[in-house]
Amino acid sequence: MILAIFIVFSLLSSSYASVQDFCVGDLSGPEGPAGFSCKKAASVTVKDFVYSGLGVAGNTTNIIKAAVTPAFAAQFPGVNGLGISMARLDLAPGGVIPFHTHPGASEVLVVIQGTICAGFVSSANKVFFQTLKKGDIMVFPQGLLHFQINGGGSPALAFVSFSSPFPGLQILDYALFGNDLPSDIIEMTTFLDAAQVKKLKGVLGGTN
Amino acid sequence: MILAIFIVFSLLSSSYASVQDFCVGDLSGPEGPAGFSCKKAASVTVKDFVYSGLGVAGNTTNIIKAAVTPAFAAQFPGVNGLGISMARLDLAPGGVIPFHTHPGASEVLVVIQGTICAGFVSSANKVFFQTLKKGDIMVFPQGLLHFQINGGGSPALAFVSFSSPFPGLQILDYALFGNDLPSDIIEMTTFLDAAQVKKLKGVLGGTN
Amino acid sequence: MILAIFIVFSLLSSSYASVQDFCVGDLSGPEGPAGFSCKKAASVTVKDFVYSGLGVAGNTTNIIKAAVTPAFAAQFPGVNGLGISMARLDLAPGGVIPFHTHPGASEVLVVIQGTICAGFVSSANKVFFQTLKKGDIMVFPQGLLHFQINGGGSPALAFVSFSSPFPGLQILDYALFGNDLPSDIIEMTTFLDAAQVKKLKGVLGGTN
Amino acid sequence: MILAIFIVFSLLSSSYASVQDFCVGDLSGPEGPAGFSCKKAASVTVKDFVYSGLGVAGNTTNIIKAAVTPAFAAQFPGVNGLGISMARLDLAPGGVIPFHTHPGASEVLVVIQGTICAGFVSSANKVFFQTLKKGDIMVFPQGLLHFQINGGGSPALAFVSFSSPFPGLQILDYALFGNDLPSDIIEMTTFLDAAQVKKLKGVLGGTN
Amino acid sequence: MILAIFIVFSLLSSSYASVQDFCVGDLSGPEGPAGFSCKKAASVTVKDFVYSGLGVAGNTTNIIKAAVTPAFAAQFPGVNGLGISMARLDLAPGGVIPFHTHPGASEVLVVIQGTICAGFVSSANKVFFQTLKKGDIMVFPQGLLHFQINGGGSPALAFVSFSSPFPGLQILDYALFGNDLPSDIIEMTTFLDAAQVKKLKGVLGGTN
Amino acid sequence: MILAIFIVFSLLSSSYASVQDFCVGDLSGPEGPAGFSCKKAASVTVKDFVYSGLGVAGNTTNIIKAAVTPAFAAQFPGVNGLGISMARLDLAPGGVIPFHTHPGASEVLVVIQGTICAGFVSSANKVFFQTLKKGDIMVFPQGLLHFQINGGGSPALAFVSFSSPFPGLQILDYALFGNDLPSDIIEMTTFLDAAQVKKLKGVLGGTN
Repeated sequence: MILAIFIVFSLLSSSYASVQDFCVGDLSGPEGPAGFSCKKAASVTVKDFVYSGLGVAGNTTNIIKAAVTPAFAAQFPGVNGLGISMARLDLAPGGVIPFHTHPGASEVLVVIQGTICAGFVSSANKVFFQTLKKGDIMVFPQGLLHFQINGGGSPALAFVSFSSPFPGLQILDYALFGNDLPSDIIEMTTFLDAAQVKKLKGVLGGTN
Repeated sequence: MILAIFIVFSLLSSSYASVQDFCVGDLSGPEGPAGFSCKKAASVTVKDFVYSGLGVAGNTTNIIKAAVTPAFAAQFPGVNGLGISMARLDLAPGGVIPFHTHPGASEVLVVIQGTICAGFVSSANKVFFQTLKKGDIMVFPQGLLHFQINGGGSPALAFVSFSSPFPGLQILDYALFGNDLPSDIIEMTTFLDAAQVKKLKGVLGGTN
Repeated sequence: MILAIFIVFSLLSSSYASVQDFCVGDLSGPEGPAGFSCKKAASVTVKDFVYSGLGVAGNTTNIIKAAVTPAFAAQFPGVNGLGISMARLDLAPGGVIPFHTHPGASEVLVVIQGTICAGFVSSANKVFFQTLKKGDIMVFPQGLLHFQINGGGSPALAFVSFSSPFPGLQILDYALFGNDLPSDIIEMTTFLDAAQVKKLKGVLGGTN
Repeated sequence: MILAIFIVFSLLSSSYASVQDFCVGDLSGPEGPAGFSCKKAASVTVKDFVYSGLGVAGNTTNIIKAAVTPAFAAQFPGVNGLGISMARLDLAPGGVIPFHTHPGASEVLVVIQGTICAGFVSSANKVFFQTLKKGDIMVFPQGLLHFQINGGGSPALAFVSFSSPFPGLQILDYALFGNDLPSDIIEMTTFLDAAQVKKLKGVLGGTN
Repeated sequence: MILAIFIVFSLLSSSYASVQDFCVGDLSGPEGPAGFSCKKAASVTVKDFVYSGLGVAGNTTNIIKAAVTPAFAAQFPGVNGLGISMARLDLAPGGVIPFHTHPGASEVLVVIQGTICAGFVSSANKVFFQTLKKGDIMVFPQGLLHFQINGGGSPALAFVSFSSPFPGLQILDYALFGNDLPSDIIEMTTFLDAAQVKKLKGVLGGTN
Repeated sequence: MILAIFIVFSLLSSSYASVQDFCVGDLSGPEGPAGFSCKKAASVTVKDFVYSGLGVAGNTTNIIKAAVTPAFAAQFPGVNGLGISMARLDLAPGGVIPFHTHPGASEVLVVIQGTICAGFVSSANKVFFQTLKKGDIMVFPQGLLHFQINGGGSPALAFVSFSSPFPGLQILDYALFGNDLPSDIIEMTTFLDAAQVKKLKGVLGGTN
C-alpha cells in the first residue's frame, strides 16, 4: 500500500531534469559563457565525478624543477557548472612556479609535503608572502600575481583549488616572452632592456 | 513626418536581439550550466509565458495524502533563465510533504486554503516551525531540510515559489530508501537499524 | 557512549556561523549592495521567516480599484539575502494595476480567484498578453513594462513572486506625473501633449 | 636547456581551453540564458575584440534629432560573456533620447561634445537630473526610466557603457504606441486620454 | 627622472581601495548577505591569508571514528568574499562522515592518505559512489546528500574545498535527532518508526 | 477623486526602500564583499550620480607620458553596487600605459582622440593587438595582461569602462619593482637578470 507514496514526485525524475543538480561537460557540444554543454543525464556515471589525473606526480625534471597538473573543466568535465576546480603542484628542491595569475578565480593552496614559500602582490602594491609548512593553507585573491617556491631541501607537494571550473592561467614570462609579441612593444610596456627581452625570448621561444 | 522617429532604434529589434529579455527554454537543444538553450525569438508567443498545469489539484489519494506539482523550467520553459519558478502543494487532511531539500533555490510558500504546519532545520541545527494559516507566507532558505504537514481537518492548498528555474528536489526518504544504495552503506551513514532500513526499502522499492 | 558522536562537528554551530544559511534583515544596521545587515543568529526565531501581512486584502476602494501589498525585504526581512520575495494583488471588478516595471527582478503570478488579463511588452517591442483564469501562472521577465487588469465581473486575487528580495517597483504614471519632474521635460521625452501632462499631473499631485 | 621550462604548462593551451578567457559570440550557434555560444578559439582574431561601428555619427535628421548606435553582443560579439557593452549617442541641437529603460544593465554615460541634460526617476519616485558638460560622467541604475536631452545650441556626443552584453532597450513611447497593443488596454493602464493614444499611435505606427 | 613614472597611478593605492582585491572578514563588524565586513586594509597582513588549523589531525576517538575540521570564513576570515573555503577530513579505519549536505556550495575532495568510499544521491534519485584511492579527486554537486567512509584498514586523510566561504554543513542525523524537533513530526516526515526515532534521539541528545 | 489613485502604492516609497534601486557608497561606513555601505536614501542627490573628475586631462609630463584617472567606486561612490565604473586615459605622443591587469573586471575602451595601439595576451598565450583610430572600441577580457601605446604624433584620449565598480588595477612593473619584494624572489619567479631587477627597482623605488 505504501508503495505508492512517492509516485506523485516521480515526474521530477524525468528526462528533462538533468540541469537541476549538475552539468557534466560535453566537450564536443557548443560552449557558452557559463561553460560547456551538459552531457545527457542518462549517460552520466560516477566516473564523470571522479578524476585520477592528480594522483600522478608531475615531471619536475625541467628548468623550473616544478610541474602544474590541472583538473579544470577541460580535463575534469565533472566540475563544469559547479564553481570549483583543482590542480596539483609538484616542486623539486629549488623548484619554482613562476609569477602567474588566474584571471577567473581565487585559489586556495594546501601543503601536503615539504615547505613552500608562497606570495602575492595586491592592487595596492603590497607584498604578502610566507613560508608554508605541511598542512598550512593560503588563499590567493582572484587575478593577482602570485608565485610558489620550494626553498627547502626536499620535494614539495601541494593541491590547489579554484573558485571556478575555468580559472585560467596566465604565466607572466610565458605571456611576455613565449609568443610573437614584438620586442619593441615588450620593451615599451615593461621598461625591460632590449638585451633582457632578447635573452628571455631565446629561452622561451618567442619570435618577433 | 514624425513617422521616422524611431527608425534609428529599430536595429535593436533585429533577429539577434532575443537574449536581451528572456530565453524560453528549447528542451530539444543543448543544455548548459545556465539552463536550456533559447527558443528562437520569432516563434515565441504568449503561450510560452503562461502555464496552466498548476490549476489542477494534484492527486492526494496516496499514502502521504499529498501531491507536489512542479512548474520548473522542464515543465514551464518560459521561466528558463529568469531566476524563478513555482510549484503547487495539495495536502489532504493528515497529508505530509516529507523532509526534503531544494539544492538550488530558496523557497517561499503562501497558504491559499486550510492550515499547514511547516518547518526547517538550520545548519546550526536549530528548528524553526510554525502552523501557517490562510494568507501566511513562509520562507525556507536554500538547501535546508524542510517539511509541510496538514494537521487540520480540511484540505490544504499552497503555492510555492523558488529563486531558480532549476530548484531541484531531493526527498530524504526517496534518496535513502528508493534506489540501489546498499543497505550497509545506509546503515553506516545514518545510524539507522538494519530492520528499519529493510522495512523502508520494502515500502519505497529500494534494492541492494 | 554514542553521545560523543557529533562533538567534532559542533564547532560549526558557533556564534559566527550565522551567514551560512540565512541573513534575516536588521533594518537598523548598515545596508550594502547585497541587502540589509544580518540580525544576530541567536535572536532569530521562526517569526522572522513567517509574514502574515499578505493575509489581509488590500483596500481597493480607490480609482484603480486595485491594491498591491508587498512582502519585500523591507516588509519581510526574512527574505533578505535569499533571492526571493512576494506581493499580493487585489483587483476589484474593473481594477487595474497600471503599467509598471520591477527594475531588479523577474516576476511570476498565480491567479487565486477571478480572472486577470495580464501582459508585457518586450525590448523587441512585441506585446504578450492573455486572460488568465484561476490556477494559471504567468512569468514577466525582469525590467519589462507590464500590467494586470481585472476585466471580469467579480473580484480577482493573485500572488506574485519575485527573483529578488529587492525587486523594486516603478509605476509609469507615478514616475511621470507624481513628482517634480518639469512638464517641459516630460513633454519632450514622451511626446505627450502639454494638456495631457497637465491633466495627469493634477490627478497625481505632480508639481513643476 | 631552458627551452623546456614551460612545457609542463603547455597542456593548458589545449583546444578545450577557450572558455577560460573569453567567449566571442557565435551568432549562428544556440543561445542560452548566459548569452551566445562561443566561436571556436582557434579562429578568434583581434578583429573579434575591436568594433568600428561607433566611429560613425548616427543619423540625427529625424524628428527626435538624435540617434542611438548600439555595440551590444548582437553587433559586437566580442563582448559576449564579458559583462559589458557600449553604445553611441548623437544628439543634434534640440535632440532627445526619449524616456527608456535598460531591463538588464546599469549605464554610465560620458559626454564627449556639447552638453546633455540627463535624468532618471527612482522607484521611490524621486527625480534626479542635471545638465552635464564635456567630460562629465553620470550613472543610471539598472531598469529605471531615464532620458537625455541636448538643450544646447551645438551637437552633442556621448558614449554610454552598460554592465551587461545584453542590456536591452525599452523605449517608452515605442512600447506603448508602436505595436499592436489595443488602445483600450493602453488607456486603462496609463490613464492617457483616448485622443492622445490615437494621436501617438498614428505617429508611431501602432495598430489596434 | 624616471622616479616620477607611476605617481599618476598612486591615487589607486589610497585608503578606500581595499575592496578591490580582497575583504578579510572582520568578525566583529556587521554581517551582510555577501559575508562579513572587511577588515581595514591597512591592518591586513599575510597572516590573514594563511591558516594553520588544518595542519593538525582531528580527534577520531569517537563513535564515528572521524573528524571534520573546517576552514570556512568563520575560522579563516581571509577567504571571506573570495568564493572558496576548505576543510580537513580525518577518518580512522571504519570511520564515517555520515550523510550530510552543504546548502551553499559544491565540494571537491582529494584523498591524501588511505582509501575513502564516497558517494552522493542526485535529485533524480540516482546513486553515485566509488572507492577513491590516494590522489583521486571527486566532486559533489551543491546541496546534495553525500557521505564518506573509510572502509580500509588504515587511517584516511582528505582535504575538501568548497565553492563558497560559507558552504554550510547540515548533518542528517544531527538535524533529525539532535535538537528539539518533536518526535511525532519526525515520524510523520521521515516514516521512521517511533522506536527508531526514540533510540537515535537518545544517542544524539534530542528532546521532545 | 482620482487623487487617491496611488496611495496604495505609497508604502513602497518608505524609508527602508533604498536598496531597491541603488546604493551610493558611504565611504565612512563598513565595507563588505559586495562593496561599500549605502548612503541613506534621504540624503542622496543627483550630485551622487554625476562625477566631473574625468573632465580634466591627466598630467602626462612624466616618463610614461601618460596618465590614468579612475572613476571607480572609491572616487565615484555613485557606481557602488551597480556593476560598472570608468577611467580616463591620456597619452601624449609616445605615451604608454604599461602592461597591467584588472583582477576584477573586463574593460572596454573607446578612442576619443588620436590613435592608440592596444593589445592583450590570452591564457592560451595568444597575442591580440591592433592600432585603434578615433571611434574604435576594443574589449579586454577580465584579468588578462594588456597595454595601450600612443604611437602617433599627437595626443591621444580614451575613456575606458569596467564591468565592476571595483575593477582593481595591478601594474606589472609596479608590482614587481615598486615595493619591498626581495630581489632574489623576483629573479627566481621571473627569470630576469639581477642587474635588470636592480635597475628597475632603482627607478621605481623598490627596496630589499
